[in-house]
Amino acid sequence: MKFARFTADGKTHMGVVNGEVIREIVGDLFTGWEYTGNVFSRQEVTLLAPLVPNEIIGIGANYVAKREQLPNVLPEIPVFFFKPSSSVIGPEAEIVIPAGIDKVKFESELAVVIGKEAKNVPESDVWQYVFGYTVANDVTAPQFFHPDGHWTIGKSFDTFTPLGPVIETELNPSSVWVKARLNGVEKQNSPTELMIIPISKMIAYLTSVMTLKPGDVILTGSPVGAELVGAGDVIECEIAEIGTLRNTFVTARERAKTC
Amino acid sequence: MKFARFTADGKTHMGVVNGEVIREIVGDLFTGWEYTGNVFSRQEVTLLAPLVPNEIIGIGANYVAKREQLPNVLPEIPVFFFKPSSSVIGPEAEIVIPAGIDKVKFESELAVVIGKEAKNVPESDVWQYVFGYTVANDVTAPQFFHPDGHWTIGKSFDTFTPLGPVIETELNPSSVWVKARLNGVEKQNSPTELMIIPISKMIAYLTSVMTLKPGDVILTGSPVGAELVGAGDVIECEIAEIGTLRNTFVTARERAKTC
Repeated sequence: MKFARFTADGKTHMGVVNGEVIREIVGDLFTGWEYTGNVFSRQEVTLLAPLVPNEIIGIGANYVAKREQLPNVLPEIPVFFFKPSSSVIGPEAEIVIPAGIDKVKFESELAVVIGKEAKNVPESDVWQYVFGYTVANDVTAPQFFHPDGHWTIGKSFDTFTPLGPVIETELNPSSVWVKARLNGVEKQNSPTELMIIPISKMIAYLTSVMTLKPGDVILTGSPVGAELVGAGDVIECEIAEIGTLRNTFVTARERAKTC
Repeated sequence: MKFARFTADGKTHMGVVNGEVIREIVGDLFTGWEYTGNVFSRQEVTLLAPLVPNEIIGIGANYVAKREQLPNVLPEIPVFFFKPSSSVIGPEAEIVIPAGIDKVKFESELAVVIGKEAKNVPESDVWQYVFGYTVANDVTAPQFFHPDGHWTIGKSFDTFTPLGPVIETELNPSSVWVKARLNGVEKQNSPTELMIIPISKMIAYLTSVMTLKPGDVILTGSPVGAELVGAGDVIECEIAEIGTLRNTFVTARERAKTC
């Protein structure tokens, strides 16, 4: 099932997507929803990020280029970081390059949406806490990384976390390919089996630290091939089973002009 | 005015504290509230963290020991980090030391509560976006810092962000003292004028990166004197004009036994 958030008639709605048809729903994605009977065509709506996340948790450097490079021993403390929910935008929205720099990095990722409160969950049980999956672009300005290693500022600018186009609830996350096309040219294309820390271990580890909540989104890392890009570039992050998340980069100045 | 959240009769309430009396309110702290007419005595309620934060943003290493040590040039990129809202507890709640370690660090801090959406705000205007102030304990397990410098895991355990006892809306944040007493012995006691990056610069900088939202909480750094402590230790973080935030440290094992 594919869930979307969208605007139509100046209002925000939720719905279930089936091809070109969106059937509106009301309620809470995680605790209970129902159909309203209203139907929209995909062409008449503007898709938003498919949810307003609670926490956004990212993992750093989580892919190898080839299966032979997968390490035998996993890192004791993975590189996790948070992104603020204020950085979230939806499909087709503009990614604003911060004033003072002219390039930022795209990072196409499979994102896990947590559906139930989870604490101290063993690896074998994590799947019952997952609501579904979406595509994320973990946009990054390495120029704002702190010399002591803190990534916070470089990952936190407004518009730096495009999510979408939908949340797919029926997906086997271990057998999908994470892709990115820059101006139509393929830059990333890796199976999720090239993840160093697999999703089940990632979720189990996080729940040993913190209580995961419905609406938490985990960005599971980006395959090799991410690049620095500039204003005017168009990035399409894609996982075939979920859809394509397409955004254009603009400079802060351009954005200000169009406001 | 001092705002509190508390439980009484098995329910969660909000109220305005005046000495030993709490007058209940309903509504939204930031957009509009009113008195219900119900009155509680402070002794009959259990105080909670005074709000459920949206983002929690911390700043690292932000105090000097003496005024003479204040740098002439501020760091270009301050050390900011996020803590998850799942780490928040209230006054008197137990701070759980994670399994596998036996010490964690307390850090008494002045916390700023944002009341209005703020983006690209100049330093001179930041105060109109501040709703009030509370006391925070930025509990930290340095053993879980990543060797590459990421603090995320070491700051994110459940119970690692005590907040309270109240939000004080009438406070001059530049002229208060941030204190901590460990088992009754003073360990931290510094005026906020020993902050390296003052609050106005901190908020202005953050709004140049991200849109601050009502309910965002900024932990403004901890004075010299923070220490590693263990199970059974009692920490009191205090800013006289706001109140005392008292919590006891327990080990994960002890906590499990009492659940």
